Amino acid sequence: MAISAAEFSERRRALLSQCEPNSLCIVAANSLVTRSNDTEYPFRQNSDFWYLTGFNEPEAYLLLSNKGTSDKQAETSYMFVQPTDAFAEVWHGRRLGVEAAKKALQVSHAFDVEEIDEYLADIIDGHQHLYYSFDDRPAVESTISLALAECRNAPKQTKLAPNHVHDIQPLIHGMRLIKSDAEITVMQEAASISCLAHRRAMQFSAPGKFEYHLEAELLHEFAMNGARYPAYGTIVGSGDNACILHYTENCSELHDGDLVLIDAGCELHGYAADITRTFPVNGKFNDTQKTLYQLVLDSQKAALDVLIPGKTISEAMQACVRVIVEGLLELGILSGTLESNIENETWRVFFMHGLGHWLGLDVHDVGIYKINGEDRPLEAGMVMTVEPGLYIPESADVEQKFKGIGIRIEDNIVLTETGHRNLTENAPKEIDDIEALMAK
Amino acid sequence: MAISAAEFSERRRALLSQCEPNSLCIVAANSLVTRSNDTEYPFRQNSDFWYLTGFNEPEAYLLLSNKGTSDKQAETSYMFVQPTDAFAEVWHGRRLGVEAAKKALQVSHAFDVEEIDEYLADIIDGHQHLYYSFDDRPAVESTISLALAECRNAPKQTKLAPNHVHDIQPLIHGMRLIKSDAEITVMQEAASISCLAHRRAMQFSAPGKFEYHLEAELLHEFAMNGARYPAYGTIVGSGDNACILHYTENCSELHDGDLVLIDAGCELHGYAADITRTFPVNGKFNDTQKTLYQLVLDSQKAALDVLIPGKTISEAMQACVRVIVEGLLELGILSGTLESNIENETWRVFFMHGLGHWLGLDVHDVGIYKINGEDRPLEAGMVMTVEPGLYIPESADVEQKFKGIGIRIEDNIVLTETGHRNLTENAPKEIDDIEALMAK
Amino acid sequence: MAISAAEFSERRRALLSQCEPNSLCIVAANSLVTRSNDTEYPFRQNSDFWYLTGFNEPEAYLLLSNKGTSDKQAETSYMFVQPTDAFAEVWHGRRLGVEAAKKALQVSHAFDVEEIDEYLADIIDGHQHLYYSFDDRPAVESTISLALAECRNAPKQTKLAPNHVHDIQPLIHGMRLIKSDAEITVMQEAASISCLAHRRAMQFSAPGKFEYHLEAELLHEFAMNGARYPAYGTIVGSGDNACILHYTENCSELHDGDLVLIDAGCELHGYAADITRTFPVNGKFNDTQKTLYQLVLDSQKAALDVLIPGKTISEAMQACVRVIVEGLLELGILSGTLESNIENETWRVFFMHGLGHWLGLDVHDVGIYKINGEDRPLEAGMVMTVEPGLYIPESADVEQKFKGIGIRIEDNIVLTETGHRNLTENAPKEIDDIEALMAK
Amino acid sequence: MAISAAEFSERRRALLSQCEPNSLCIVAANSLVTRSNDTEYPFRQNSDFWYLTGFNEPEAYLLLSNKGTSDKQAETSYMFVQPTDAFAEVWHGRRLGVEAAKKALQVSHAFDVEEIDEYLADIIDGHQHLYYSFDDRPAVESTISLALAECRNAPKQTKLAPNHVHDIQPLIHGMRLIKSDAEITVMQEAASISCLAHRRAMQFSAPGKFEYHLEAELLHEFAMNGARYPAYGTIVGSGDNACILHYTENCSELHDGDLVLIDAGCELHGYAADITRTFPVNGKFNDTQKTLYQLVLDSQKAALDVLIPGKTISEAMQACVRVIVEGLLELGILSGTLESNIENETWRVFFMHGLGHWLGLDVHDVGIYKINGEDRPLEAGMVMTVEPGLYIPESADVEQKFKGIGIRIEDNIVLTETGHRNLTENAPKEIDDIEALMAK
Repeated sequence: MAISAAEFSERRRALLSQCEPNSLCIVAANSLVTRSNDTEYPFRQNSDFWYLTGFNEPEAYLLLSNKGTSDKQAETSYMFVQPTDAFAEVWHGRRLGVEAAKKALQVSHAFDVEEIDEYLADIIDGHQHLYYSFDDRPAVESTISLALAECRNAPKQTKLAPNHVHDIQPLIHGMRLIKSDAEITVMQEAASISCLAHRRAMQFSAPGKFEYHLEAELLHEFAMNGARYPAYGTIVGSGDNACILHYTENCSELHDGDLVLIDAGCELHGYAADITRTFPVNGKFNDTQKTLYQLVLDSQKAALDVLIPGKTISEAMQACVRVIVEGLLELGILSGTLESNIENETWRVFFMHGLGHWLGLDVHDVGIYKINGEDRPLEAGMVMTVEPGLYIPESADVEQKFKGIGIRIEDNIVLTETGHRNLTENAPKEIDDIEALMAK
Repeated sequence: MAISAAEFSERRRALLSQCEPNSLCIVAANSLVTRSNDTEYPFRQNSDFWYLTGFNEPEAYLLLSNKGTSDKQAETSYMFVQPTDAFAEVWHGRRLGVEAAKKALQVSHAFDVEEIDEYLADIIDGHQHLYYSFDDRPAVESTISLALAECRNAPKQTKLAPNHVHDIQPLIHGMRLIKSDAEITVMQEAASISCLAHRRAMQFSAPGKFEYHLEAELLHEFAMNGARYPAYGTIVGSGDNACILHYTENCSELHDGDLVLIDAGCELHGYAADITRTFPVNGKFNDTQKTLYQLVLDSQKAALDVLIPGKTISEAMQACVRVIVEGLLELGILSGTLESNIENETWRVFFMHGLGHWLGLDVHDVGIYKINGEDRPLEAGMVMTVEPGLYIPESADVEQKFKGIGIRIEDNIVLTETGHRNLTENAPKEIDDIEALMAK
Repeated sequence: MAISAAEFSERRRALLSQCEPNSLCIVAANSLVTRSNDTEYPFRQNSDFWYLTGFNEPEAYLLLSNKGTSDKQAETSYMFVQPTDAFAEVWHGRRLGVEAAKKALQVSHAFDVEEIDEYLADIIDGHQHLYYSFDDRPAVESTISLALAECRNAPKQTKLAPNHVHDIQPLIHGMRLIKSDAEITVMQEAASISCLAHRRAMQFSAPGKFEYHLEAELLHEFAMNGARYPAYGTIVGSGDNACILHYTENCSELHDGDLVLIDAGCELHGYAADITRTFPVNGKFNDTQKTLYQLVLDSQKAALDVLIPGKTISEAMQACVRVIVEGLLELGILSGTLESNIENETWRVFFMHGLGHWLGLDVHDVGIYKINGEDRPLEAGMVMTVEPGLYIPESADVEQKFKGIGIRIEDNIVLTETGHRNLTENAPKEIDDIEALMAK
Repeated sequence: MAISAAEFSERRRALLSQCEPNSLCIVAANSLVTRSNDTEYPFRQNSDFWYLTGFNEPEAYLLLSNKGTSDKQAETSYMFVQPTDAFAEVWHGRRLGVEAAKKALQVSHAFDVEEIDEYLADIIDGHQHLYYSFDDRPAVESTISLALAECRNAPKQTKLAPNHVHDIQPLIHGMRLIKSDAEITVMQEAASISCLAHRRAMQFSAPGKFEYHLEAELLHEFAMNGARYPAYGTIVGSGDNACILHYTENCSELHDGDLVLIDAGCELHGYAADITRTFPVNGKFNDTQKTLYQLVLDSQKAALDVLIPGKTISEAMQACVRVIVEGLLELGILSGTLESNIENETWRVFFMHGLGHWLGLDVHDVGIYKINGEDRPLEAGMVMTVEPGLYIPESADVEQKFKGIGIRIEDNIVLTETGHRNLTENAPKEIDDIEALMAK
């Protein structure tokens, strides 16, 4: 396993140390999700639960308590998991089971998850504070609500229910925002696999192929390297399709002379890569494409120059936008002064999204961007995407030659003590490098 | 599109003709399902909704009414769909929209689905019978319940709510069980693509590869042929893993001398293929493997001989079991008489599932297997799997040489007027054919 | 008990005979309802449940099945009731208990109601039709929904859930509309007690008393005669308060020269009386009051003349309205022709409610007023109120002398084979009779 | 009104001062509760809402916020109330309305309660802490949950939802436990009316009357004095019925020679009285009755002697029990030593409830009895009942002469700075006083 049991254990301790005295934390695993009739989608663990346990089975609960300890970090921990069951396992696959879970996950107590409704009220009893996700699925909310009601309505007040309930998400998400060395190692591996896939897709591209062929190449490369699932819906948009930001139909034929935009990354041990590259279907940029592409690339570099600890994403975005606007003015796509265009945000017609986002167990990873209304300064251990773009659909009111072009260039960086490191530099983004690779 | 608009329209008419006079039918599309945080699994339409509309967007409702017509087949039809929305479409992709839906889907009325809570009570008003799925997701049940409550509680009884509510599933599922020519054409195509994928996986297999490598080959072959998703979780089980029926972890290394069982089929235009093949990792069966494999193959052939219109699945299962038991007795794995083993079902230890299942828009397709407690006779147009197996795990109480072997051979057949046709014959299952293919 | 066990039994048989073959009916008792903190309102049984059982405890279910009988009237009946429980009964009072319930209520099976969630799915299993109230309280709906879900989701389809669900209310309410002789006997008794109470309130009235004093007199008279609860919130409205139709604050002082309107009836064995009388606070009508009062009384008599089997409530209302409009024209409160006022419903400003309503276990008793959009002809055994009124608030745009007057005269009648009988004639309504009584 | 607007206002301020900075409090009024079909029970306001507002209409919300103030006691207050509505008021009665509510209740803002779902999320937005009752009815929970979800799911995190949710009940209930002078004045009045009613019932009692006749006398006396409702279900238990603690059927005939126990109190301005007296049906105690009655009376006096500030209810209970046990030993009903009986709680067979309970807006009033597991010392301003009893049912294993006797003597006291004051001394409890009153 990529992350050690000791690290998971330390994360649980660190979580509990942020809670009030006499607190109970409840974190639930995901359930299997129906795809159609009796078939299910491939299981994906809840990111918060995974972050605290590394346990990849559905239908489980982690509980952490600091009740009755003078040291509020002292932890009594419980896991509720699916029991081993010879019959169920012949049909549905192996399970870790209660006894093994207690040992493998290093918790104080382990139980059969089918008994949680029986035990939970007793465990809650006597805690003054309860922490759980205010955004959990209905079945989990219902389990907790029923147990709370059982506490409150216990005959003759024999049970003490918490009077204070807190959202656990801000605590966990604050922790998840700063990646450990072990996490960064996994994320580098996910990024590297994803770079290989982008390279392969570039090489496979040719007029007459379809967008879904490129997707197939990417997913095959992911899987052959052990990453069975993409971290998000793969986008392969050629021509005008590239102007739909989350285009995932991938059903069009690739046409000679068009650009194609691929936004794809694999998921490895739960962690996401998130790379976008844009390249010519036929392997050679034409002049207009070259100009617009270089403009986006320059804007990304301007942003990257800013992204060091102490700076903010907003500052990088400003640098990026300045390059974009200068370029669009030069091309006659925008008119007026630099400053007035920046002030009036005229560029948002062609670049309607943000500069990037946190990256981690989720592709749009958790963690707040502002603290008390102020942009959050960057810190070492943060991982983020940097992804400026230009989108000029057929319907745009510009010169014909610019139409039907969507460009985005997206890298993943980790903030270091002194600057940042680019995790995705192995996917070519310079015009010459792309053309050279595609010419092979 | 594989199925014509006229066929969808005819299906809706046929559904309504089975309802009581003054009835309203409600069939809901699926929603997008969260995978993690703000990412979703690839959308899969509700099979019943797809069967009646061929419309592949989430958040939609089909309503069919025969109110106020002397001819109970006369149809007033409504579609509620997501509206076109320039902003949403830049972000999330193209939608058909209200106006185009009305035309493309040939319904009487089309509305914005966000207004369904506003309109539904008015549409329900005056119907005496309401048909909907008694097994729909909570959000759909809630939408219908709220509208019914609004009808019932309308001031001064100005609205008339249905006093009779019926499960629509038996009606639709009875229709889905008998496939049309157009459906069979699609299913043959899905089966053929899946056969290609099985052939490729056989050829790729070698000691030292991992199970997930074979899965990657299969999925790539599906996708390159236009089938972007498997119809169910691909099973690649080598050695002892083959004895877990729905093993989908696919994480083990392939070992020289082991068998590997692959249960995989693609989904094409919503229709499933479902093929299992078992073959030697290294391309050559050893003697024990050969014996057991041939036994399963013979039992499948015995079953196939029975499967013609008028016969039942139970009759075919009996023929299959007889072959299996004879073989196991001969091998000394079972002891006693043929009849007593059959009667006492001793063979279930090694063959614990049924002979097969309906196949169609769902891999375990809808349709009842018994009518008033009696086995249902087969009819032309039914499509089913035929999939005997033998599973002898390491933990079994048998001679060592038999252990760690799981074999299943599964084909897809369509019942014809006079017999059946095998849709999956292009995936080799004779020992010689497999060894020849793998030797290339 | 006022209604015999045999009659309750016959009602259950008659209900089941209206259901489809292979049907299960579920009728739930009411629960206790919280008034404040841990105190409850006095228990009132659900009228439908009471009608079928005569059983006055909360937390009970009646189930009726005709499954597996060639004769669809054959009945298997179940009662779920609160068990006897020495501890609970010391605290909360005596219960009939499971064994005694089976005998007293003459059902096939009786169970502890706390086990209904355990048994209900098994009882539902195998029925094709389910009848229950589509308007029941959430806890009952939840109990039924859970049992249905358990049936539907039983492993390997071992349970058969109903595909057809029907509202039981139209069946029971159709029965309740026609009263038996035993019911009419009880209703006459309820009416007679209520007449005594109205007489006592008239005699107690005097300037300086408060409205709630008259209410206290009425309720005391009810209770001393064994009717511990009023059938609805007692209305004692003096002066302008009489123009608020459901005025129940009863907090004003009675003023010399004002009229006071009392709308009150007791509940006896579950059946309601519903009488309104209007009289002068000081015992003597003044001229204006006399004129208006006589007008309402005449309109009531005109309505009563129409109310015989075969006629409709609408016809009686027309006769009533004609008298009212003639009178208002004569008084100059309306102007124009008789017919135009009737057509334009100008009178609704002063008489804004209907002529009356069904009366029985509910004060606004169940039963539909129209059949296929047509007024329902009256039949012997129907019981209804006849209650025209005139309401001229202080805010009305009329001569000063008419203001602050609200008059309603309401009797309860039972339709006989040849006409009707007035159950409430012992409460005086002629001006002379009222003045004579109040002069005593 | 009994309590001044200034006092309600001060209570709201005091509540908010106990909350964290940046808090919002939500307190909901009660709804009308259905009795049967379309009739409702008389409205009773939620005690906490009444305590903070004195507003007696259903469907209302009080909101208190200290957001954005450096002084955490600064209050922004909102009332959501039913709007004035000419049509609804003709039918259902007068309402205060939005504008008048703002003025009368002295809040910063008032709104139509039907718009609460529209406004609540906006009001919650920006608060870090939310206080509401964790024990409110489902409709209120649903309103709050929906608003919280709306905050959390606001697009692009434009709203800030509270991460901390607290039960408001402990704060309000702590305040309610200590009564103000104005409250004690109202409670004395409620107690005095209830004493009159008990006296009247004693005088009315005679063999051949029924228990419900005495109930009718009590309720009539309450109502004639302006207390339209009892504070709880009136208990009139004669003979063996007195041994059922919450016997409210009141349906038996009074027999010569029996005792009758009445537990009844009125509700006045929301405040409860709670008096129990036990007396002979025929006006004269026999010897056994006298002995047992005097024993209970002595035990009550022993308890009362202890009840002063600084002492605890447990200490008074010990004094009471000691008297009871001594008496039962003397009578031979218990055997063994005084101390062993006390230690083994043998007396609980005949005295199975506690000594008393807090009294106020609820008959079993709110407020905790223990603090950190320790009995709470009494303080001035607390109001409580003192109500020892002896219950010897026909089924008891004692001498025949003791059977069928249930005795309870219950007074209401208010703790003063130096001792306590008995609010219910006007209801006779000395044997001579009872016999003298009943002889009149």
